[in-house]
Amino acid sequence: MKISIIGTGTVGQTIASKLIELGYDVMLGTRNVQEKLSSTAKDGYGNPPFSEWNKSNARVKLGTFEEAASWGEIVLNATNGANSIAALKLAGAKNLSGKILIDISNPLDFSNGMPPSLLPGLHNTNSLGEEIQKTFPEAKVVKTLNTVWCGLMVKPDMIGKGDHINYISGNDPGAKAEVKKLLTQFGWKDENILDLGDISGARATESVMPIWLRVMGVVRTGAFNFTLVR
Amino acid sequence: MKISIIGTGTVGQTIASKLIELGYDVMLGTRNVQEKLSSTAKDGYGNPPFSEWNKSNARVKLGTFEEAASWGEIVLNATNGANSIAALKLAGAKNLSGKILIDISNPLDFSNGMPPSLLPGLHNTNSLGEEIQKTFPEAKVVKTLNTVWCGLMVKPDMIGKGDHINYISGNDPGAKAEVKKLLTQFGWKDENILDLGDISGARATESVMPIWLRVMGVVRTGAFNFTLVR
Repeated sequence: MKISIIGTGTVGQTIASKLIELGYDVMLGTRNVQEKLSSTAKDGYGNPPFSEWNKSNARVKLGTFEEAASWGEIVLNATNGANSIAALKLAGAKNLSGKILIDISNPLDFSNGMPPSLLPGLHNTNSLGEEIQKTFPEAKVVKTLNTVWCGLMVKPDMIGKGDHINYISGNDPGAKAEVKKLLTQFGWKDENILDLGDISGARATESVMPIWLRVMGVVRTGAFNFTLVR
Repeated sequence: MKISIIGTGTVGQTIASKLIELGYDVMLGTRNVQEKLSSTAKDGYGNPPFSEWNKSNARVKLGTFEEAASWGEIVLNATNGANSIAALKLAGAKNLSGKILIDISNPLDFSNGMPPSLLPGLHNTNSLGEEIQKTFPEAKVVKTLNTVWCGLMVKPDMIGKGDHINYISGNDPGAKAEVKKLLTQFGWKDENILDLGDISGARATESVMPIWLRVMGVVRTGAFNFTLVR
C-alpha cells in the first residue's frame, strides 16, 4: 500500500522510516523538492538537514505536496499545524477526495513565547482536525497520535510496556478502523486506543498540548505519556 | 485550623465534609445565607437542595462570602468558574490578603452546548487561576485538584490504589507546601502531586477539561483520572 506523508520534518521522517520498515511504499511531500534535497541547513529545531536523513532512508520517495497526495492511497498530515491547511490546499482537494487523511498535527502558536499556545480560531470551540475536515469535506479525516511525542508514535513500548493512551477521532467509522490497523502495526494495543467519536474529538486531543508541554517542561523529556486510570 | 470554602455546590460540600472529618473548622460562604438555607429546590445538576446536605453536616458553618473569607485562615474557591471572580470580589480582597487561596475551579462555558468549552479570555493565553491571582495580588493562589472529579479529590484511592495524577501550581512555594500537606490528608501521595511551577500552570491544568469531558462522555463516569507513564 502507498502512503504519502505531507511534511518532511522530524515527525514526518519518523513516521516514514517506520512505514518503510513495515513494508509500505512511502512518499514524502514537500513544498519544493530541489530546495529540500539541496539544503544543508539544520531545521528550526536544530535537527540535521533533510538530505542527511534521506541518505539513510533512500527507499522513501520525495515529491511535491501535490505529487505525494495524488500518489498515496492514504495521506498523512505531518506538517506544522500553522501551515497544515495551506499545505493541504497545495496538495489539492481532488487528490484527497475519498481518501483517508490521517491528521497527527497540532495547531501550535509560537508567537506568544514558550511553551507555545494554541492558534486563535483553532481551539476551544474549533480544532485543526475539524478545520481540515471542513476544508476538505470529501476526505476522511482521522485524528490520532497528536498527543504523543513522535518517538512514541511508532514505538509506544518505549515506555510503560506500551500501556498508555492514544486517541482516535473521525466521522468515518471505516476509516478509523483502517487507521487502527496501522496503529496496531506501530505497536499500539487495541485497548489503549480510545475512540472519541467524530472529528470534534480533535478539539479535546489538541487541547492536551498545554498540559503535555507543561509536564514536558518538568520531566524534561518527550518520552512520556498519560494513561487512563479507572 | 479554620478553612472557609467559597461556593456551596457539590464540590464545596464534598470538600467541606472531608475537612470536617479531618478535624478542621469549616465555614461555607454563599451569596445569601437565608435563601440558601430555605431553598428546597434541587441545584442546576439535579442534586438535593443545600438544606438537606446541611442537616447531616451540621458542624459546617454557613456565612456570606465575606463572612467566610474573613473567618477562614485558608480560603478555598469552589464556585462555578464563570462566577469565581465576582464571588471572590464579594468575599473581599482585604479578607484574602496574605492568605492561601486554593483554587479548584474551572472556567467552564456552557453557552455553546455540551460538553462545555472554556470561557473566552480565560484559556490558552490566560487562565482562571492566573486571573484570580492578578485580581487579588495579595492572596497566595494555589491551583490544584481541578483536573479530577470531586469524589476523587478527597478520596483518590477510589481508583487505581490512588496512583493517578494531581497538579499544583502557584507563585508562593510556602503556600504550595501547605496545600500539599492538606492534599496528603485527602489521600494524595506525594509522588502523584506534580508541581508545575508558578500560577501559569493553571493554564495547563484548566486545559485538561476538554479531554477530561470528552473521555467522561466515553467512559460514562467521573471516577477516572490520568496518570503519567515514563
